[in-house]
This record gives sequence, structure tokens and C-alpha cells, in this order.
Amino acid sequence: MGGSPYWTVEAVRQVRYHVVSSNGLFDPGNTALLTGCPDAPMSPGDRRLVVIDQNVDTLYGHDVRAYFTAHGIDATIVPLRADEAVKQWDAVSRVVDAMNDFGIDRRREPVLAVGGGVLTDIVGFAASLYRRGTPYIRIPTTLIGLVDAGVGVKTGVNYERGKNRLGTYAPATATFLDRSFLRSLSLRHISNGLAEILKMALIRSEDLFALLESHGAAVRADRLQGTTEDLARASDAIIAESIHLMLEELQPNLWESALERCVDYGHTFSPTLEMHALPELLHGEAVVIDMALTTALATLRGDVSEAQADRIYNVIQALGLPLWNEVLEDPSLLEDALRDTVRHRDGQQRLPLPIGIGRHRFVNDVTSAELRDAARLLGDRARGYAPSAGTLVPEQVGA
Amino acid sequence: MGGSPYWTVEAVRQVRYHVVSSNGLFDPGNTALLTGCPDAPMSPGDRRLVVIDQNVDTLYGHDVRAYFTAHGIDATIVPLRADEAVKQWDAVSRVVDAMNDFGIDRRREPVLAVGGGVLTDIVGFAASLYRRGTPYIRIPTTLIGLVDAGVGVKTGVNYERGKNRLGTYAPATATFLDRSFLRSLSLRHISNGLAEILKMALIRSEDLFALLESHGAAVRADRLQGTTEDLARASDAIIAESIHLMLEELQPNLWESALERCVDYGHTFSPTLEMHALPELLHGEAVVIDMALTTALATLRGDVSEAQADRIYNVIQALGLPLWNEVLEDPSLLEDALRDTVRHRDGQQRLPLPIGIGRHRFVNDVTSAELRDAARLLGDRARGYAPSAGTLVPEQVGA
Ligand SMILES: NC(=O)c1ccc[n+]([C@@H]2O[C@H](COP(=O)([O-])OP(=O)(O)OC[C@H]3O[C@@H](n4cnc5c(N)ncnc54)[C@H](O)[C@@H]3O)[C@@H](O)[C@H]2O)c1
Ligand SMILES: NC(=O)c1ccc[n+]([C@@H]2O[C@H](COP(=O)([O-])OP(=O)(O)OC[C@H]3O[C@@H](n4cnc5c(N)ncnc54)[C@H](O)[C@@H]3O)[C@@H](O)[C@H]2O)c1
Repeated sequence: MGGSPYWTVEAVRQVRYHVVSSNGLFDPGNTALLTGCPDAPMSPGDRRLVVIDQNVDTLYGHDVRAYFTAHGIDATIVPLRADEAVKQWDAVSRVVDAMNDFGIDRRREPVLAVGGGVLTDIVGFAASLYRRGTPYIRIPTTLIGLVDAGVGVKTGVNYERGKNRLGTYAPATATFLDRSFLRSLSLRHISNGLAEILKMALIRSEDLFALLESHGAAVRADRLQGTTEDLARASDAIIAESIHLMLEELQPNLWESALERCVDYGHTFSPTLEMHALPELLHGEAVVIDMALTTALATLRGDVSEAQADRIYNVIQALGLPLWNEVLEDPSLLEDALRDTVRHRDGQQRLPLPIGIGRHRFVNDVTSAELRDAARLLGDRARGYAPSAGTLVPEQVGA
Repeated sequence: MGGSPYWTVEAVRQVRYHVVSSNGLFDPGNTALLTGCPDAPMSPGDRRLVVIDQNVDTLYGHDVRAYFTAHGIDATIVPLRADEAVKQWDAVSRVVDAMNDFGIDRRREPVLAVGGGVLTDIVGFAASLYRRGTPYIRIPTTLIGLVDAGVGVKTGVNYERGKNRLGTYAPATATFLDRSFLRSLSLRHISNGLAEILKMALIRSEDLFALLESHGAAVRADRLQGTTEDLARASDAIIAESIHLMLEELQPNLWESALERCVDYGHTFSPTLEMHALPELLHGEAVVIDMALTTALATLRGDVSEAQADRIYNVIQALGLPLWNEVLEDPSLLEDALRDTVRHRDGQQRLPLPIGIGRHRFVNDVTSAELRDAARLLGDRARGYAPSAGTLVPEQVGA
């Protein structure tokens, strides 16, 4: 032997996960949670650890407990405070404590996570680290959870000022979607979720955009409950189409190795907006302002017509979302945001820009002057849309 | 649309990593770290964050700094206390702080981890979580690091009483092996590493066992420095063969989905031993006692001859390792350990047992009575090996 040995290890890891829809998951007669996913069965006599957003527990805890009891599942329910302010390691540590106390059998007892994106991100992170990976199941209870946080593979928490600075790629074995949870969600959070749906529409699907244009306002006011047959059809179609497009984009790029990602649309300037306007802006609100700005930019480039831009701005307004934030008045912030993006996309802008409605391309040549012009154009439009040039918040805020 | 949509997402993730040997990595003229691995090049002008075990920094920090300066690398060296007692989240958090302060560019600036298994496990864990995965490079400085912790894909830290309770599967892009670091390692830690090498020999390779039998004691006393040509050849062969076998076992099972793993040999009773005898026993010492016990068991079954068992016990002794710990006198502890193992191996023992020297099979039928008999047999042998029946510690302990 001797010399200088050299080894290369190569392997592939298979990943598979499921997204299952079923309204009224915790209705006593609904068996979707028990038998709806072949990779995550649950039978009488099984034990389960259930970590639940404490606000969701207040609203639905009774039904959840009754459901497990009725089906003979020995469930340990652990309510957890889960909002952006506590989305930190401490919350992960609390979930790990719960897993230790429960004495989880990681081969047979997946952890259930019931709540919004904050809760499922925290529990998913904890599960992915526990014994280097313990299966978990997501039951999202917000619209962001249903169409975004609950169907992808990312977990994580904030670290100091860094949003989702720590995390893993670890899909839930199964996600169960139940839009009936949205009945208690604030309209502002409904709008917040619609912003991500609008993103998919603008970049990928004129059909989805048309659905939002014709039904968005009504579906929002209905909190996607499907009170009439028409509204039910619209809600189902909007959610299903949005998820479908999202998964189509995610599947070939689950670990984000490709740097050109159209799902990054609306996410170029929004981190900077969020950083400077927090806690004023929710994530989806920042994303929609970014999309409004880049729509203006595409209009200046002739890629989006004035008429199309008007349709887009009208839908934003109809969904109860803002067009503008005064942060956009500071051109140096936009330049900083672009510079940050370039750094994270390996030296290039790779900026998804809309072409008309429902298509996109990636560009690398956006200039500061162009950004300033786009902000000015959007500002004019926004001042037409509401009397003040300040932040345009949805008409109804809070739960 | 409507109905109950159902999606299944499937994908495969490619993993590749390298293990590169080169003695005297930080000798001014050695370019292995710069150009030795195509996936981890380093050029003048590059920045690097280097996290180093503080004991290693004391011994080698001067050479390390001089090396980077000489090659025009702008290195930020962060010494970190790294022993089993501090192998906890706090240490991970410190590494994350260092990555934040450094402002790491995760596409171009892999983190370097220089130290024993504790340091590389902590830094690997932190890197694997930072922005959901930042590349890192390992430079192990202990024998455990060279043949085990440094060449696999596992990272992690302890959580309360749970050893490596939290972690990820995240290989370093490259590991650079340099046995010259071992010159300052305590003989006890040399023996500790030899225990893992002996494990590979017993289960997989009579040739490696023969090397240990003929050169083990001398190589240990020489701390694998290769002071003579013979010793150099033996050290290189022992390390390379051990890594080769280890990687052969790991590659098809990187994420430990298969439950029958021969590299688990020695790891059935050792966790319980470690738990009850800590801090008295090092990991490799606990592993070797487990191997001595299961060798006795295999002798009773007729799978290992008395003569072979004698050779094995003699090599254990020659490597400065213990055969026995009084914890083995409590049969209920061994039963508990077996029960725990069954729980973690999905309901079956899946116990690797030696056949002769260098081969193995998996069994599921070990009984408590058999364990008691094996412990008695080993106890008799151990009392022959040293006058007291207490823990047999290596003759020289400490640095
Ligand atoms: N992992 C991913 O891929 C991904 C994708 C998008 C967003 N996210 C993350 O998701 C988080 C945002 O998620 P979110 O928008 O769901 O916010 P959230 O989880 O904070 O929930 C919003 C609020 O609604 C409450 N709530 C939840 N369900 C409710 C219900 N049914 N009725 C009434 N109140 C309810 C929550 O307690 C909370 O106060 C962010 O931290 C973001 O980083 C992750
Ligand atoms: N990730 C894996 O696959 C894997 C495999 C095996 C072990 N491990 C982990 O590795 C750890 C044990 O590693 P270890 O045995 O290297 O212990 P260690 O990292 O604690 O190092 C042992 C001691 O030697 C010191 N040291 C390190 N290099 C030295 C040198 N060149 N000269 C003098 N002193 C030096 C250290 O500061 C420490 O005090 C355990 O935590 C175990 O869980 C991980």
C-alpha cells in the first residue's frame, strides 16, 4: 500500500412524499388521516406525538383530541407558541424535549405537526435532526401552509436577524390539506396566502390568474370555505392549481441546486422590504410589492403591456394586498437588495421577470436607473389606487 | 377540479465526497489542501473560515496560520473548545456565529474543520444547517477522526443524556487525512482509534487483523508516525485498509436505511456500557469490551474457536485496550442493552456476530442466559489477563 490513497464516495438518495387533500380532517367519520396515505398509516392502538400551534389548539384542540380518542389513537398533544418572533432554536429545543419525553420510536411513530408555516417549519426542523431524521406529517392550517410551506421540503428557523438562516431539506412523509381550517384565519393572512398563489399565476399560468381575477375577491371574503357551489369550485381549483404548479417547479429542483428558479419571483426585493418594514409587512405583502415593482419594470421593457399591468394591479387590490411601501422611495435599498441577490445566486442576477401574464424569463441586466424608473412608475399607479402614498394595507386587518 | 387531489413527489439526490491522504498537510510546500481535491480547490486571494479544536490550535495553530499566509489565503481562524462535555447545541451556535461574522459565501467558501471527532461533528452539523447546507472540509487530527468520524457522512451533537441525539447526514466535500497530527495524541486516544480499526478487522478482514497482530503494538507506541520504514508501511496499510473497508460498508448504506450493518459490531452493548461507566470509558474502549463479550458469545456457539478467541484477546491487550468492565457483572444491564438495540433496529436483534476472524453473520436469537454465560467466560479470561477484575485501563493514560 503506501503512497497517497484517494477515495471518492458516490451515492444517490431517494426521496418520496405525498400531499393528500381532504376537507374536515378531524370530522369523526373522516379516515383520511388513518388510511389516506399508504406511507403514513395510523391504526387503533398506535401512539402519536402531535405538536400543535397553540392558537390552533385553542380553536380546534377539542376536535383534535376527540378525533384521536374516537379512533383509538393514544395521542400526546403538545401545544406550542409558534409565531415569527419565537421561530428560533428554543422552539426546536422544546419539540426535541417533547420527542424525548414521548420516547418516540422513529421507525413507527411519525410526529404530527398541526399549524401554520411557522409551526410546521419548526417541527419539521426538529424531526429532521432527531436521531438524524425522524419522519413527520404536516397538517397546515393557514393558506401559506396549504399552498407553500406545507407542500415543499424546506424546514428551518431564524437565527438572530437571519430569516430561516438554519434549516434542512426534509419533506414530511405526508401532508394533509384541509381548507376548512381557514374559516378562522384572519383576512389579512388569507390575503397573505393569496399573494403566493398570485405569484404562481403571474409566472406560470394565465388560467390561474383568470381564476383569481374572476373569483379572487369573493373567495377571499369566503375564506375559501366554499359556502356556495361556485365558491367551492373556485376555492378548490385555485388551491389545487397553485399546488400543482408549485410541485411541478419543486420536483426537479428539490434541493435548490439550480439557481434560476421562477418560484423566486417576488423574492428579489422582498427580503429587504421585510427587513426594513417589519413588523409592518407580512411575507406575502412584501412579495406582492416586489411583484408590483417588477411588473412595472417589465412594463418599461415592453414585456408586459399597460393593460396587462392594470389587470395585475387590480387583482392585487382585489385580493386585499398592498401595491406599494414607502421603502421603495429609497433607491439605494433596491440596489442593495439586488446586490444581495446576486451574491446568493452565485454572481448573477438570475431575476425572473414576467412576460405578459403567466410566462417569464430570467434576466441578468437590470440596472439601478431602471429600478428607479420602475419604482416611480409604480408610485404613480399606487397614488392613483389610494389617496396616501404610504403603505397600503388591506382594509381589514387582524383576526 | 374539485374532488380530492393527491400528489406524490419523487426525486433523487446525488451525493459525492472525497477522502484524500497527504502527510504534513500544513508543511509550507504541501499543496494537497490547495489542489488535492478537484471539488474543493483553494487559490491565493480566497477567504476561508477555519474552525479548529482549541487544543489542536495550541499545538499546531502557528503552522496552520503560517501555511495560509504563505499561500495567500485570507484565513479567519476560530479556536473552539471541543470535548464530549461541550458537544452540545451551544457549540453549534458558536460556529453559526462565526459563519455569520465571517459573512460566508456558501457557494465559494467552504468552512474548514480541524480537530478530532467532536470538532468535526460539531462543525459539520453547523455547516449542514447554515442556509440549509454550506459545504465544509474536514481535517481530522485524531485516529478516530482519520478512520471513522472524518470519513463518513454523519454529523451531530449530544442533547441532554442522548449521545448524538441531534444530527444530520452531511458529508464534507473533502476530508484530508494527515497522520502526522497523531504525534501529539495521547496513547489512550491512539488505542481508542485502534479499537475501531480492530472492529473492521474482526468483522471484515483477516488480513487487517494479521497486520494488527504483527504490528499493532509497535505502531501504537510509534503513534503511527512511521519512524522506521517498516512502521511507516504498517501504519499506512492499517489506516488505508481500515478506511477502505469502512467506505465499502458505508457507500451502499450512507443514510443507514438498512438495519443490518456490520459496522455496528461492538455497538450493541457499548452504549449502555458508556452510559454506566462514563467518564471512565472512552467510546473505543466500550466498543472493545462489547467485542470481547460477543467474541466469547461466538466462542460458546462454536463460531469462533478458542484459539481464535485467544488471538483476539491478545491483540486487544497489545493495543492497550480493556477486555472487561465490572458493568458486565450486572446481567440485567446487558438485557436492557439488547432490548434497546431491538427497539432501534425495528423489532429485531440484527446482531452482527463474528465467524472466525474477519467474517460475520447477523443473528436474532441471543438469549439472556447466553449473555450471562458469555460474560462469565470473558470474566474468567480477563482475570487471567490481569490480577484485578476491575476495569483494565491501558498502562498509560492522558496526554
Ligand atoms: N418551508 C417552506 O417552504 C416555507 C414556505 C413559505 C413560508 N414558510 C414560512 O412560513 C411562515 C409563515 O407561515 P404562515 O403564514 O402560515 O404564518 P404563521 O404560522 O405565523 O400563522 C399565522 C398566524 O395564524 C395563526 N393560525 C394558524 N392557523 C390558524 C387558523 N386555522 N385559524 C386562526 N389562526 C390560525 C397562527 O397562530 C399565527 O398567529 C414563515 O416563517 C415562513 O418562513 C416556509
Ligand atoms: N461522525 C461520525 O461518523 C463519528 C464516528 C465516530 C465517532 N464520532 C464522534 O467522534 C467523537 C470522538 O472523537 P475523538 O475520539 O477524535 O475525540 P475528540 O475529538 O474529543 O479528541 C480527543 C482529545 O484529543 C484532543 N486532540 C485532538 N487532536 C489532537 C492532536 N493531534 N494532538 C493532541 N490532542 C489532540 C482533543 O482536543 C480532545 O481533547 C465522539 O463525539 C463521537 O461521537 C463520530
